Amino acid sequence: MPARPDIEAEIHARLVPFPKPHLLGVEDLSPEEALRLLDLADAFAGLNELPRRSLELLKGLTQANLFFENSTRTRSSFEIAGKRLGADVVNLDVATSSTAKGETLSDTAATIDAMGCDLMVVRHAGEGSVAEVAGAVKASVINAGDGKNEHPTQALLDALTIRRAFGRLDGLTVAIVGDLRHSRVARSNARLLPRLGVKLRMAGPPPLMPENPVQGVELADSLDAAVAGADVVMMLRIQRERMDASVAPSPEAYAQAWGLNRDRLALAAAGAKVMHPGPMNRDVEMDSTLADDRNVSLIRDQVRNGVAVRMAVLASLAARRS
Amino acid sequence: MPARPDIEAEIHARLVPFPKPHLLGVEDLSPEEALRLLDLADAFAGLNELPRRSLELLKGLTQANLFFENSTRTRSSFEIAGKRLGADVVNLDVATSSTAKGETLSDTAATIDAMGCDLMVVRHAGEGSVAEVAGAVKASVINAGDGKNEHPTQALLDALTIRRAFGRLDGLTVAIVGDLRHSRVARSNARLLPRLGVKLRMAGPPPLMPENPVQGVELADSLDAAVAGADVVMMLRIQRERMDASVAPSPEAYAQAWGLNRDRLALAAAGAKVMHPGPMNRDVEMDSTLADDRNVSLIRDQVRNGVAVRMAVLASLAARRS
Amino acid sequence: MPARPDIEAEIHARLVPFPKPHLLGVEDLSPEEALRLLDLADAFAGLNELPRRSLELLKGLTQANLFFENSTRTRSSFEIAGKRLGADVVNLDVATSSTAKGETLSDTAATIDAMGCDLMVVRHAGEGSVAEVAGAVKASVINAGDGKNEHPTQALLDALTIRRAFGRLDGLTVAIVGDLRHSRVARSNARLLPRLGVKLRMAGPPPLMPENPVQGVELADSLDAAVAGADVVMMLRIQRERMDASVAPSPEAYAQAWGLNRDRLALAAAGAKVMHPGPMNRDVEMDSTLADDRNVSLIRDQVRNGVAVRMAVLASLAARRS
Repeated sequence: MPARPDIEAEIHARLVPFPKPHLLGVEDLSPEEALRLLDLADAFAGLNELPRRSLELLKGLTQANLFFENSTRTRSSFEIAGKRLGADVVNLDVATSSTAKGETLSDTAATIDAMGCDLMVVRHAGEGSVAEVAGAVKASVINAGDGKNEHPTQALLDALTIRRAFGRLDGLTVAIVGDLRHSRVARSNARLLPRLGVKLRMAGPPPLMPENPVQGVELADSLDAAVAGADVVMMLRIQRERMDASVAPSPEAYAQAWGLNRDRLALAAAGAKVMHPGPMNRDVEMDSTLADDRNVSLIRDQVRNGVAVRMAVLASLAARRS
Repeated sequence: MPARPDIEAEIHARLVPFPKPHLLGVEDLSPEEALRLLDLADAFAGLNELPRRSLELLKGLTQANLFFENSTRTRSSFEIAGKRLGADVVNLDVATSSTAKGETLSDTAATIDAMGCDLMVVRHAGEGSVAEVAGAVKASVINAGDGKNEHPTQALLDALTIRRAFGRLDGLTVAIVGDLRHSRVARSNARLLPRLGVKLRMAGPPPLMPENPVQGVELADSLDAAVAGADVVMMLRIQRERMDASVAPSPEAYAQAWGLNRDRLALAAAGAKVMHPGPMNRDVEMDSTLADDRNVSLIRDQVRNGVAVRMAVLASLAARRS
Repeated sequence: MPARPDIEAEIHARLVPFPKPHLLGVEDLSPEEALRLLDLADAFAGLNELPRRSLELLKGLTQANLFFENSTRTRSSFEIAGKRLGADVVNLDVATSSTAKGETLSDTAATIDAMGCDLMVVRHAGEGSVAEVAGAVKASVINAGDGKNEHPTQALLDALTIRRAFGRLDGLTVAIVGDLRHSRVARSNARLLPRLGVKLRMAGPPPLMPENPVQGVELADSLDAAVAGADVVMMLRIQRERMDASVAPSPEAYAQAWGLNRDRLALAAAGAKVMHPGPMNRDVEMDSTLADDRNVSLIRDQVRNGVAVRMAVLASLAARRS
């Protein structure tokens, strides 16, 4: 592992205390701070490519993953990130536990906090609920998704993925397409990417458009209009229960109107890439062949970079505390 | 972390082998042994206040948490305690597994034991079931609650919390109020606190009084009588399904008759403190403002000290084995 | 721990890279390779007998346990094996997660893989499904049971258990009795033991006999015929839902026809041993007194050796990757 000492030195050089006590939304970071965090995440991505990866930056710290909504994918990503940095990681399947016994959200969180928690990763169905937790605990809280509000590490990993693919963010055009109304992924990206110099466009079925106009985001009225000339097309997951007559009566109809395929991607800029936060409904939001084409698809990179971004967030928050 | 070497030295100085192979009930400890364990727990509480906390006393040992009843709170406390001491910790969600396949309790436990278990933390709905497990395994077993019988680490953490708040146990008056009949917390406290010099009083709705008189415990017939002059008032959780015409027809009626508030606490000794094992039904067993008043409430301290007590029990049992 | 340096040296001396990128079935190992793996497992069994056991062979590696079917027993065995070797171990309760959201098996596995997985332990109800996962990931995959197909670490632990009990495998007669048709345990053993010199016999209720004849295995038409002169009798678990008029109308009737007891075991060779992969239906597949008689029963040894075998497989696969 000859590269290792260099990478460790780079991580230490780039590691600065997180600017806020918590990461509740992407606006907790200024553009400069966000870019610096991506630099650190880049270094962690380098560490993650080594055959053996561990760096005891969180040694002696306790990380609790409080998921009030199930999410194998996001929880595992945070768990791997924390363990790789040496934290004691505890998973709390709170969906089925004390809160069911009538305990308030704040009481549940404050109880776990009192056990001696340093980092608390929280997902909850209610908008603002993770901020409520942050107000009740001493731990540094990371929002892993609060209802339709925010999912900041997803936006950061999307930014990292785009920057690693294109070498820059500034001046790129990104289209986000699908169920914008219910998507915290879309919301966090809409708050982050334009501040990093990205020209952002959004499109989706009219009943699923954002309730309020989003600053700095151009709304398009069709998939084709959104894709035209874009460097990146990010397709959002559509829940089956949202498909009705006003959106699309069936998965096939949705794919017809709002699914991405090679013909439609041909409208994008040369060298355009496709993204999806997962889990994907194959051949609904996007053609399978497109999703699996490693020359075009960044979907696996998003997952890979998610761990690096979460390592960067956890390590920066820990650096602030010590 | 300048305090650290001192704290580690103190822990090593106070760590003596646990007197029994298992901790099944508080009577496994003589009063002197219990107090010595609290001294060790005090040292761990000091460690837990450091910004980074780990001490590899359980390195190379395996701790299995077998919870036949769900309990996020107690399981997490034991899990954090074990991981902080360097154990390999494995959680077994046995509620939903092999026992459902018709395997006996002893067979399930002996199987996990044969995998090479040193410490086994067990919660089960049946009184005596944890002792049954202890008879079937080589691991040191800790009772994390067996039906209405015992929950010894809860009584130890309660004793530690009171001693840290008042500087002593001897001569204090503690009132425990609520559903005494079904409470293993009350039972373990009733077996421990009087032996440590505490004057213990209990009160609750008549249908929820203990089935048999408890040695060394004074029974009061109202909340006010129990609280009068007490240094500590510990309120027990009331299950909603226990509220009926004979107990209290509603949460409001229960609060009226058996809930603690500032007026009633005024009857207690000057500087009296309130406790609750959690999870709490706010404004039923206790007024929210009382529970949240850090000048009066020790509820968060109980949770915090729970980890320290469990670290002390785990480390002492491990010291006995090596 | 005076024995420790010797044991560690022995482990290092016996540790060779696994011959294949994955362990999907016992035929991934030649007889020589299988025996060499058992030698390594023997050394790990020695390590496991020490009062403290850890060896950081998997330090810096991530092991994901993807169980699409619940199995506390097998999952815990792999989890303890991985943690004891210093891996970062992540459990994914995929039975209840993303796949329920319509994601394909390959997508779920590839997503976890993209997080930076080195070792992936997979159980799934579909025959061939674990091989499908292996085709979709970069991690080394271990089949922890795929439908009725294979459960290779079970066959390896059975071989290790027999060899440790008798000092050899070559020339022994082993009888496997019960529900052969649905048993991946029987199938993996049938593919492994004869290649290691074991004379293998099988018997079971006619509706539960294998669909196809198995090479190198003698089929007997009664329990007594299978047991006669055998050195080892391995009884298989019978699912209650398989008991019908054609098999046996009740557990008692099954025990009568196909359950092992002392009288029947008297037909076996002198010093014969009994085995069961667990979980056992007591007094159905085998008399309780037989199962609990440590002079005769190897059931606990099977569990104990399971951890050693899994440590050997994990360490060998890791050695191949680095």
